[in-house]
Amino acid sequence: MTFEMSWSKREKEIARRAFDAAHEREYRDLLHKTREMANRMQEPGDLWRLHDFLRRTLKDVDEKYDYRYSVLILVFARLVREGWLSLKELEGLGEDKREAIDHILAFAREQSHGHGE
Amino acid sequence: MTFEMSWSKREKEIARRAFDAAHEREYRDLLHKTREMANRMQEPGDLWRLHDFLRRTLKDVDEKYDYRYSVLILVFARLVREGWLSLKELEGLGEDKREAIDHILAFAREQSHGHGE
Repeated sequence: MTFEMSWSKREKEIARRAFDAAHEREYRDLLHKTREMANRMQEPGDLWRLHDFLRRTLKDVDEKYDYRYSVLILVFARLVREGWLSLKELEGLGEDKREAIDHILAFAREQSHGHGE
Repeated sequence: MTFEMSWSKREKEIARRAFDAAHEREYRDLLHKTREMANRMQEPGDLWRLHDFLRRTLKDVDEKYDYRYSVLILVFARLVREGWLSLKELEGLGEDKREAIDHILAFAREQSHGHGE
């Protein structure tokens, strides 16, 4: 699913700032979680668990933060849904983009209710 | 390079105990180093560095601790050379095995001097 929308210079600035802020926040959280895991380690198996956690999580984060304008609306919706970004930080984006994000969020909420989350 | 030697029941007990002790020591050290690295992390790149360190080191340790009798003499020589095992812990092994280990250690020392270590 891609979104063909045109982004003004101002919108690109807002998008970039929001994207970078969420990225920074998620990495800070990951640094914190990793330190916590490391400090709780007791046995050899914990080293493997930490390794697997980092491999999986770093790959996920790497794939998630995709700054192509064709997918950015989906990325923003996901970041809002996961709590890394607030809708307030997206103020200044055009109505077309805000509405697209709202629609995706509403759809995601419906889906998750449907699956008993 | 393999060593075809016969191992008595008593020798197998000594070998197993020495092997497990070194293994435990190296994992303890790795737990310590990993916690230190984790607590020094400052930025996203440090997460990748920790991940790469764990991937490389866990793989090395996994490959090194090979308890097949055909390679055990080489494994013990390497563990002594790296400081994870003392020659004292191998007391009780037959002269054939002690001498083989001494030869490998002498050879390794020569090689490293030759390469300016």
